[in-house]
Amino acid sequence: MRKYIVGVDVGGTSIKFGKFDTTGELLQKWSIKTDKSNNGENIINDIATSIKQAIPLNEIKGVGIGVPGPVTNNVVLHCVNLGWGRKNLEKELSELIDDPEILVKAGNDATLAAAGEMYKGIAKGYDVVVLFTLGTGIGGGIIFKDEIVEGINGVGGELGHMQVDFKHNFTCACGKRGCLETVASATGIVNLAKSNLMKSKARSPLRRFETFSAKKVFDYAKEGDYIAKKTIDEAMKYLAFAMANVTYTINPEIIVIGGGVSNAGNYIIEQIEKHYYEMVKPFISHTNFAIASLGNEAGIYGCCYMVK
Amino acid sequence: MRKYIVGVDVGGTSIKFGKFDTTGELLQKWSIKTDKSNNGENIINDIATSIKQAIPLNEIKGVGIGVPGPVTNNVVLHCVNLGWGRKNLEKELSELIDDPEILVKAGNDATLAAAGEMYKGIAKGYDVVVLFTLGTGIGGGIIFKDEIVEGINGVGGELGHMQVDFKHNFTCACGKRGCLETVASATGIVNLAKSNLMKSKARSPLRRFETFSAKKVFDYAKEGDYIAKKTIDEAMKYLAFAMANVTYTINPEIIVIGGGVSNAGNYIIEQIEKHYYEMVKPFISHTNFAIASLGNEAGIYGCCYMVK
Repeated sequence: MRKYIVGVDVGGTSIKFGKFDTTGELLQKWSIKTDKSNNGENIINDIATSIKQAIPLNEIKGVGIGVPGPVTNNVVLHCVNLGWGRKNLEKELSELIDDPEILVKAGNDATLAAAGEMYKGIAKGYDVVVLFTLGTGIGGGIIFKDEIVEGINGVGGELGHMQVDFKHNFTCACGKRGCLETVASATGIVNLAKSNLMKSKARSPLRRFETFSAKKVFDYAKEGDYIAKKTIDEAMKYLAFAMANVTYTINPEIIVIGGGVSNAGNYIIEQIEKHYYEMVKPFISHTNFAIASLGNEAGIYGCCYMVK
Repeated sequence: MRKYIVGVDVGGTSIKFGKFDTTGELLQKWSIKTDKSNNGENIINDIATSIKQAIPLNEIKGVGIGVPGPVTNNVVLHCVNLGWGRKNLEKELSELIDDPEILVKAGNDATLAAAGEMYKGIAKGYDVVVLFTLGTGIGGGIIFKDEIVEGINGVGGELGHMQVDFKHNFTCACGKRGCLETVASATGIVNLAKSNLMKSKARSPLRRFETFSAKKVFDYAKEGDYIAKKTIDEAMKYLAFAMANVTYTINPEIIVIGGGVSNAGNYIIEQIEKHYYEMVKPFISHTNFAIASLGNEAGIYGCCYMVK
């Protein structure tokens, strides 16, 4: 009877839903707009309503939700993007769904994306998986032997906030300086490029633009532009440094790179490897690196994994 | 019948043995000298002989061995201290013991010390435990929900080789520069103190000695000496940085500090906390820190845990 699992990935702009069977096959997906009014007080209700409209409750086995903030034991500690403070998601959504047979669980979105990649994506078959999602910010997720690493304060896999830069000291959204996010996210790469353009007199096609994207920096780096190459080299060295720190901690079987920046493809892996192996020698001569394969569906797959 | 477990902690100078009952109570301990001649080829035989002399084999349920090198799936990858290259410890020792009912397992010594502290020491009752052992070098160990974190290359918990120092660039035994071990081990603290004495003209009782120990630096720091205080502050900031990196990775429930340097007691925790909370804000306002409680018996307790 209860043959479906629902994955819900809550973002600052939209909420993505996936309807899965119990083997983790994605049968249907849809999304709604995120209503952030009044500190996002309608979001959970909107989720419950949307699920009820799409699937008869007595056919649902479980609902997994991913949110952009630290989560521990199904309690969200805060989600700045959604306007939320502390929130017991399991309890609130369970009450609205009002069917005690439906298992409800919550987790951090990037951590669940890591679970998704392990469950049905590029990291399938690996036991210890680390994901870096390089987007506007940097998220991270860690799976250790099938267990989602939440951390006692929900900070497990918050890889974007490791300090890696002691030179530029760009300010991070978290208030600190030098976080990985400030130098290796899409925003960070642009920060670095602008700083390099200012400090150098070298010609660069990047000077033609008042504003530009990280993609542009990658494109010109691939074409051989000095400033763009130097920028990508620096950004990937910072990223490699964070990856080396993670390696000396849990020595994962595979490191997966996701998020918009990962569209740069294998080029990004080559740039990381150049620095990474210098940092982990003589202990490690090979680590598996891969570009994420589920795109922005990784989160809903991970939600499905969590409650399957 | 099989009521005993044997823990064996192999060090560069001596091999410690512990005879435990199956509840993990230490009933007897002894040690033998480590014979490092001919690349340590006699060590495993010496271990087997010593066990056979001490306990009738048919009363032994399991033997756990800890060694100072990376271990994965009971295979030691190398132990520079013992002269060993790759070695299947489980196989070699099992053959010498020649009793198929005895479970033999091997692990990294610092990782097993972490397991020991979780099993019977200060970290009892905690699920996710990180240990830093500050001795001549720095070892580390991580337990995640009762699982010993070995890592795919045996590098899990090799916390002494995270790069934390970009200023002094002291060379590490591993060949790299700036590893945590070069600035926060007993040797590292002396390195830093000497560098500070050279760079400053400040008076310091440390100038009276041609050579001195990390303990002396701690003692004078507690007494208020400027150079000693500055040195300990720097060393503990480097240590806090490595701990913050680990926190952003697995966010442990407790961080335990062991090894000779931990004899400085709560003073060391106070010095770490001062820097650590700056590094993990605004995500974390409290982490449990503790000084290890099993001293150099932690290793054999961890060996017992591994095969109990």
